[in-house]
Amino acid sequence: MERIDIGLVGFGTIGSGVVKVLRRRSKLLKKKLGVSINIRKICDVNLRRKRIVQVDSSVLTRDVRQILDDPQIKIVVELVGGIHPAKEIIIQALRSRKHVVTANKALLAECAEEIFKEAGQNDVRVFFEASVGAGIPIVKSLRESLIANRIERIYGIVNGTSNYVLSQMTQQSWDLRRSLKIARQKGYAEKRAFLDLKGIDSAHKLVILAALAFGRWVPLSKVYVEGITDVSLSDVDYARELGYVIKLLAVAKSENDELELRVHPTLIPRRHLLSSVGGVYNAIYVSGDLIEEQVYYGRGAGMFPTASAVVGDIADLVDALKDGACVDKPQLVYKTNIRRVKSISEITSRYYIRFLAIDRPGVLAKISGILGQHKISIASVSQKERKSARIVPIVMMTHEASERSMRLALEKIGCLETIKRKPVALRVERL
Amino acid sequence: MERIDIGLVGFGTIGSGVVKVLRRRSKLLKKKLGVSINIRKICDVNLRRKRIVQVDSSVLTRDVRQILDDPQIKIVVELVGGIHPAKEIIIQALRSRKHVVTANKALLAECAEEIFKEAGQNDVRVFFEASVGAGIPIVKSLRESLIANRIERIYGIVNGTSNYVLSQMTQQSWDLRRSLKIARQKGYAEKRAFLDLKGIDSAHKLVILAALAFGRWVPLSKVYVEGITDVSLSDVDYARELGYVIKLLAVAKSENDELELRVHPTLIPRRHLLSSVGGVYNAIYVSGDLIEEQVYYGRGAGMFPTASAVVGDIADLVDALKDGACVDKPQLVYKTNIRRVKSISEITSRYYIRFLAIDRPGVLAKISGILGQHKISIASVSQKERKSARIVPIVMMTHEASERSMRLALEKIGCLETIKRKPVALRVERL
Repeated sequence: MERIDIGLVGFGTIGSGVVKVLRRRSKLLKKKLGVSINIRKICDVNLRRKRIVQVDSSVLTRDVRQILDDPQIKIVVELVGGIHPAKEIIIQALRSRKHVVTANKALLAECAEEIFKEAGQNDVRVFFEASVGAGIPIVKSLRESLIANRIERIYGIVNGTSNYVLSQMTQQSWDLRRSLKIARQKGYAEKRAFLDLKGIDSAHKLVILAALAFGRWVPLSKVYVEGITDVSLSDVDYARELGYVIKLLAVAKSENDELELRVHPTLIPRRHLLSSVGGVYNAIYVSGDLIEEQVYYGRGAGMFPTASAVVGDIADLVDALKDGACVDKPQLVYKTNIRRVKSISEITSRYYIRFLAIDRPGVLAKISGILGQHKISIASVSQKERKSARIVPIVMMTHEASERSMRLALEKIGCLETIKRKPVALRVERL
Repeated sequence: MERIDIGLVGFGTIGSGVVKVLRRRSKLLKKKLGVSINIRKICDVNLRRKRIVQVDSSVLTRDVRQILDDPQIKIVVELVGGIHPAKEIIIQALRSRKHVVTANKALLAECAEEIFKEAGQNDVRVFFEASVGAGIPIVKSLRESLIANRIERIYGIVNGTSNYVLSQMTQQSWDLRRSLKIARQKGYAEKRAFLDLKGIDSAHKLVILAALAFGRWVPLSKVYVEGITDVSLSDVDYARELGYVIKLLAVAKSENDELELRVHPTLIPRRHLLSSVGGVYNAIYVSGDLIEEQVYYGRGAGMFPTASAVVGDIADLVDALKDGACVDKPQLVYKTNIRRVKSISEITSRYYIRFLAIDRPGVLAKISGILGQHKISIASVSQKERKSARIVPIVMMTHEASERSMRLALEKIGCLETIKRKPVALRVERL
């Protein structure tokens, strides 16, 4: 085989990047792979948009069937994004026994079981390196390199926008609103930035990471999600004083055959490598029984970092296809001994908690009394200086406590007459 | 095919780890790969040593021909280490058309061309993930995931022993001798620790990383190597004051089709992620035109982290072999446009320089005069407090300067009557 034909669906930013890279590196790829990669068709609803690459009009089409029905095309690259019609396109491609490369995290997080079942039945593969961390090879590493490990924990900083906002809050002492404004100005936040700040995008990626690490596609609804929109500058500051940095973490933990999946703002120790991951960068921490600890760091979004991953996937498939070998079934289809996914109320964690209390004798005793009744033991307390008349912030770090008890305790404390505003609680990971 | 047979040569620490992992994860691997991996023979000169795994005596042999001549064995795992007889064993295995997995960085750094030529001629592959960074998947990532990138720079902290020693010097303010002693007590330094501290081990790994990144096996003799044995505690302290940390870096840079390969103690900014890589951990920084910047971090040595990589390689080969497909030629055999490797005198760098001078008027003027004559411009100077009578340390940071000029200037300065001891110069990378 001299040449392998591919079809591209979705010719937006990422699509243009992929075309540009495949062209710019066509000789290098041919040298490395032994065959050339030919973009036979590109489909998009909008063929007039201005793009960074010029493509011959004979290659362009608005009709996706020209790709799906072309027996010459062996690989379909889906870069449409969103659920529909991306899902239908992928399913049709798989039914036509075409391999699929996709960057679509939302779709995988919501419909992976269906997609991989279809792929398995048709003996074709779905590759998705670009769906998490763009050019960071975390998908391939979890799937292949770490194949012999029992993965224990994953901590991901996987949303660049949130990380940029939190980094600005930490480093510049800007509040969330101002940080987001700057992120927008710099092109780091999209219009739908709330999906990022609310943790939804991170949750999509966590579902994918967990599937790779634990062999099971967990429904998105079972992931606990809490965004960073309520993180205040004071909490960022108090965390710093305590030696911590606040990051939006996607957390997966496996213990006693039970899985914990959650996305929330988290205090992590400042001395830990992950705390130095600033700006729009992403990082994924993985612990496994053989490797102990690893961190993968890099740009988690953008045209070229994403195109790097997409072309890497294409190259992988081309490498497997060129000898005419039938590519085996997706490696993901195996079951592990994970029995269930815990709900958030079942987890335990250390907590950072902050109260705004009226400065009156006995307040601290009441708070700690309630915490004690719920078996929450306090690791440190500091009562801050008064900000406004008679209202003082009280900041505590707890030892490991159950989330359920914590919620009950906070509810009681919140009802105290001396407590102004809802108490703040953030989870702490020591890593 | 139900089962793939492998042979293991070298049953020391790593070998035992590999056997243990293959056994402990046999079911999982079978589920993921669809075939089982069978250890058919294990060869070692010493069959009596106490090991962490019990192996049936029928599997053990002292005669390597029992592996090399067995047509049933498809994959030979070489874990002997060193050049001979590891090289002969690998060459023979390749000639018998067996695929090879090795962790042998010294051998690859010295004889890779010969080995890959043999592999190419026999249409078999040589995999070597464990040779750099143990379980950190840097080899596979450079070879496969980053395939479309033009790699620009690599900075590797790839020797755990040196990094442990430097970390202790930085954090505990222990001198090199004491740090090494503690490293030995903790089992982090081998008897031949001088290979580590002298930078030889890092140079081996740099040759491998450069081959993956730039498609060319550079002879070890063309790598400039300077170890950490001359790094003093004062330099560690002065570097800290300037906002830097000293790390033993393996550096590869490609510019204008020329390659720069060097290993030396290097000042890196404290705010950079790499500076937080402490203890025996390894990290590899990669910059490429698409990905921009990435860092891979993890344990770079040890039985299980290394076994993780070896088993990952075995799994890769098994995955390719199980359909009876002939595995294609090694992807490494391609030429890039690298024309030549620069000698150290041709590079340019920023420098940290330190002099011990007699505290006498005009000394600083003389030093800076000589630097100026050699077109070396000074970014900052600080004259430290006197330590002993009348001898003062002078510390300077320079702007980018040529190594050749720097050497000439230092030689002249070293001859000044007012200068006591040989001047110290360390390269600075801003990353």
